[in-house]
Amino acid sequence: MQLIEQAIAFKQGTAEIPEQKRTVANLFFENSTRTKSSFQMAELKLGWSQIVVDPSSSSTAKGESLSDTLKTLGAIGVDAVVVRHRQTNWYEPLLHDESGLMPILINAGDGSGQHPSQSLLDLMTIYEEFGHFEELHIRIVGDLSHSRVARSNAEILQRLGVSVSFAGPASWYPEDFNQFGQRVELDDDLSAIDVMMMLRVQHERLSEAADEQFDAASYHEAYGLTVARYERLAPQAIIMHPAPVNRGVEIADSLVESPKSRIFKQMANGVFARMAILTSVTEAKHAVTN
Amino acid sequence: MQLIEQAIAFKQGTAEIPEQKRTVANLFFENSTRTKSSFQMAELKLGWSQIVVDPSSSSTAKGESLSDTLKTLGAIGVDAVVVRHRQTNWYEPLLHDESGLMPILINAGDGSGQHPSQSLLDLMTIYEEFGHFEELHIRIVGDLSHSRVARSNAEILQRLGVSVSFAGPASWYPEDFNQFGQRVELDDDLSAIDVMMMLRVQHERLSEAADEQFDAASYHEAYGLTVARYERLAPQAIIMHPAPVNRGVEIADSLVESPKSRIFKQMANGVFARMAILTSVTEAKHAVTN
Amino acid sequence: MQLIEQAIAFKQGTAEIPEQKRTVANLFFENSTRTKSSFQMAELKLGWSQIVVDPSSSSTAKGESLSDTLKTLGAIGVDAVVVRHRQTNWYEPLLHDESGLMPILINAGDGSGQHPSQSLLDLMTIYEEFGHFEELHIRIVGDLSHSRVARSNAEILQRLGVSVSFAGPASWYPEDFNQFGQRVELDDDLSAIDVMMMLRVQHERLSEAADEQFDAASYHEAYGLTVARYERLAPQAIIMHPAPVNRGVEIADSLVESPKSRIFKQMANGVFARMAILTSVTEAKHAVTN
Repeated sequence: MQLIEQAIAFKQGTAEIPEQKRTVANLFFENSTRTKSSFQMAELKLGWSQIVVDPSSSSTAKGESLSDTLKTLGAIGVDAVVVRHRQTNWYEPLLHDESGLMPILINAGDGSGQHPSQSLLDLMTIYEEFGHFEELHIRIVGDLSHSRVARSNAEILQRLGVSVSFAGPASWYPEDFNQFGQRVELDDDLSAIDVMMMLRVQHERLSEAADEQFDAASYHEAYGLTVARYERLAPQAIIMHPAPVNRGVEIADSLVESPKSRIFKQMANGVFARMAILTSVTEAKHAVTN
Repeated sequence: MQLIEQAIAFKQGTAEIPEQKRTVANLFFENSTRTKSSFQMAELKLGWSQIVVDPSSSSTAKGESLSDTLKTLGAIGVDAVVVRHRQTNWYEPLLHDESGLMPILINAGDGSGQHPSQSLLDLMTIYEEFGHFEELHIRIVGDLSHSRVARSNAEILQRLGVSVSFAGPASWYPEDFNQFGQRVELDDDLSAIDVMMMLRVQHERLSEAADEQFDAASYHEAYGLTVARYERLAPQAIIMHPAPVNRGVEIADSLVESPKSRIFKQMANGVFARMAILTSVTEAKHAVTN
Repeated sequence: MQLIEQAIAFKQGTAEIPEQKRTVANLFFENSTRTKSSFQMAELKLGWSQIVVDPSSSSTAKGESLSDTLKTLGAIGVDAVVVRHRQTNWYEPLLHDESGLMPILINAGDGSGQHPSQSLLDLMTIYEEFGHFEELHIRIVGDLSHSRVARSNAEILQRLGVSVSFAGPASWYPEDFNQFGQRVELDDDLSAIDVMMMLRVQHERLSEAADEQFDAASYHEAYGLTVARYERLAPQAIIMHPAPVNRGVEIADSLVESPKSRIFKQMANGVFARMAILTSVTEAKHAVTN
C-alpha cells in the first residue's frame, strides 16, 4: 500500500523527487519495449543516470556468469541494476552474496516466475479506479501457466482481499493456482466481475494447448474478450492487459481502446510505479547501510 | 525557408534554445550512423532526454504493430519519436489516429519514400553557399529510383525555383521525375551546373540495372564524378552526397574532401537542421493543444 | 605517473572535475561489459554527454570505412571516440589524417595489440598497493600471445623498473617478450612474487595449444592459480586479473574474492583511470589547438 500511495503521489506531483541521484543499469536479457522504456522514463524523471549494457554484446557472450556481471557493475559504481532474465528465480543464488559488491537488484521479470513492477502498476491502476481491494471480483483469463504477471497478481490480489477467479484452456491452468482462487468458465457470472484481466497468448503456444487445438479465431471465440462478452460486463467493470496485445485474439481489436479499457493507462501508471520502486529500494538500502 | 533560417540561426548561435525540455525516442528500424547520431546530437544540444529503444530487442520482435509501439511510447510520456522504417509511407495509417496517445512523429526516412531531414540539411547547405535558390542549376546523379532523398530534393528544389536535371542509368530513372526536371546525359553542360548532387549506389544493385551491366569501375566511368569531370565544373560549383560514400564509385576517392566538396559540411549542418525540425514540430503541437 | 596520480586524485575526490563538458561516442566493435561500462561511468562522472552508436546497426554494415565513420562523428560535433576494434593497430592509418574532422581517438583495445586503459588501471592498482614500481617482481601468467593487456603491461612495467617474468604454455609465449622479461616455470620462486597477474584463457583456444592438449581442469593444474600455489605466496603479494575470469581455470573459484585478490578493485579503479585518460587527451588537444 505504501508503494501504491507513493506511485500515485509521483503521478499527482505531490511526492518530492529525492535529492540523492543514483546510477542505474537496465539489463534486459529478453525482448521488451514497455518495461524497459518505462524504467528508463522513471529514471529520467528521478534525474538518475543510466549505464547502457546490451547483453547481446556484453561479456555474457564470453560466458561470464550473471553474478560476476552484476558484481562488475557494482564495482564500477552502479547503484542498482534492473534485470529481466529468462531464468525463473535468477536472483535466488545471489540473495546471500557477501562480497559487498552486489548492487541493488530489481526484478523486471524472471522466466515464468514473477513480474513485480508490472504487478505494482496493475494494483495501482485498480486502486485508482475503485479506491479499495476488498470485495472486488477479478478474473484472470488466458495462458496462466506461462504468465509471470498472472502469478504475481493472483497471489497478491488474494492477500489484499480480492475474490480472484481464473478462466482459460485447462492445459494452461497450473493446479497450484487453486490456493489463490477458483477456476471457472469464462462466461460464468460475467456481470459480477469488476476487473477482466486478459493475458497475452503467444502464437507459437496456441497449437500446444494439450487437449484442444486453436487458431487465433477459435481462441478468441472460446477465451477472448469478444464484443458480445464486453456487452455483458457491469457498468463499473474495467479491462486490463499487460500488453503487447494480440488484437483479435485475447481482445477484440475494437475493444483495446474502448471506454472500459485501462490498457494504455496501465502503461502510463507503470512509470510512476517504477519511480516508487526505484526510490524505495535505494532508500531502504541506504537506511540499512547507515 | 523558416526552417532553413532557424537551422542557420542555431548554427550561428543566434537562436535561443527553448526552455521547455522534451523526451524523445529514436526508433531506427534500419541501419544508420549519420542520421541517428545527428538526431541524438541535436537532442543533446537542445538539452532533451532520450529513451533508448532498440527495435531488434523490442516487442516488435513479439509481433507488436508499429502503431501500438508508438502509442506505448506516447503513453509512458515520450513527446516525440524519430522513426526510420523500411516501409514507404509507414506514417500514412497513423495520420488519423484519434487515441490521443500518439506522440509527435518525425520521419527519418521511409523506404523509398521521403527523407525530409536530409532534404532540409541539403537545402540549408545550398542556401548557405549561394544565398538563394532561383536560377540555380542542380544535377542529381545516380540511383534515382531507390533514393528517398532524391525524391524529396527533386520535388522541393523545383518548387523553390531551381532548374533540376537528372543523370544516371536509364533503368534507374523513374518516369514521374519528369515533373521535377529533365533527364540529360551526365556530361551535358557540366560547366553550367552549380550543384552536383551524387547519390549512393548500393553494390548489390549494380548488376540489376536492366539494360546495362556494371561493376564499380565501369559505373564510375559512366556515371561517377571522375577527376576529369570535376575539372570541367564551374568555379562556384559544389559537390554534395548524402553519404555514406562508396569512394571510387559515385565519386573519385580523392574528390571526397576536395575544395568543391561539401559532404562533411552537410553532416555538420544536419545537426542544426534537426534542431530546427525538433523544436518546430513540438512547438507547433503545443500551439495546437493550447 | 601523471595519469596515475590524476586517477588517484579523482578516486580520492581531490581532483577537480573540469568545467568544460565534452560529447563522446563509445564505439565498440567487439563484445565488452567492463571496459564499455567503465568508460560510460567515467563520462557520467565528468558530466559529459554520450552519443550511442551500435556498430551492428550502423553504416559500417553498409560497408562504410572506419575512417569515414569517425570523420562523420567528428563532423557532427563529437569531441572524442572510444574505439574497441578487432583489428590490431586500427588507428595506424588514421594517425596522419589531415581532414581536420577526426575526433580525438581513444584505444579501448585493438585486436591482439594494446589495451592502454586496462594497463593504466593495472598500474594504478599496483601503485596504490606498493607506492612504487622499482624492485617489484611481477609474474604474468597464461595466454600471452593473444592478450593485448599482457603486451601493454609487460612493456611498460619493464620501463618502470619492475622485474617481469612470464609463465604459461610454451606455444602461447611470443619470443619477442624476451625483451620485457624472462620466461620461467610458474612454480619458480613463487614466494618472491609481489603481483601474480593471471590472464584470461579463451576456452576455444585450450585445445589449440600446440604441443600440449588441455581441458579446463588440466590447465588449472598446470598453469592456474590453485589454492596450493596461493598458499605459497608472500604475505604482501596480490593477485590481479583483467576479467572476465574463468573461475576454476585461471584461478580457483574460491580465490577470486580472497584477501589477496584485487580483481574487483581493478574494476573500481578503471573508472578513475579512464577519467584521467579522457580529461588528459581532451585538454592536450585543446592546448595544441589554441
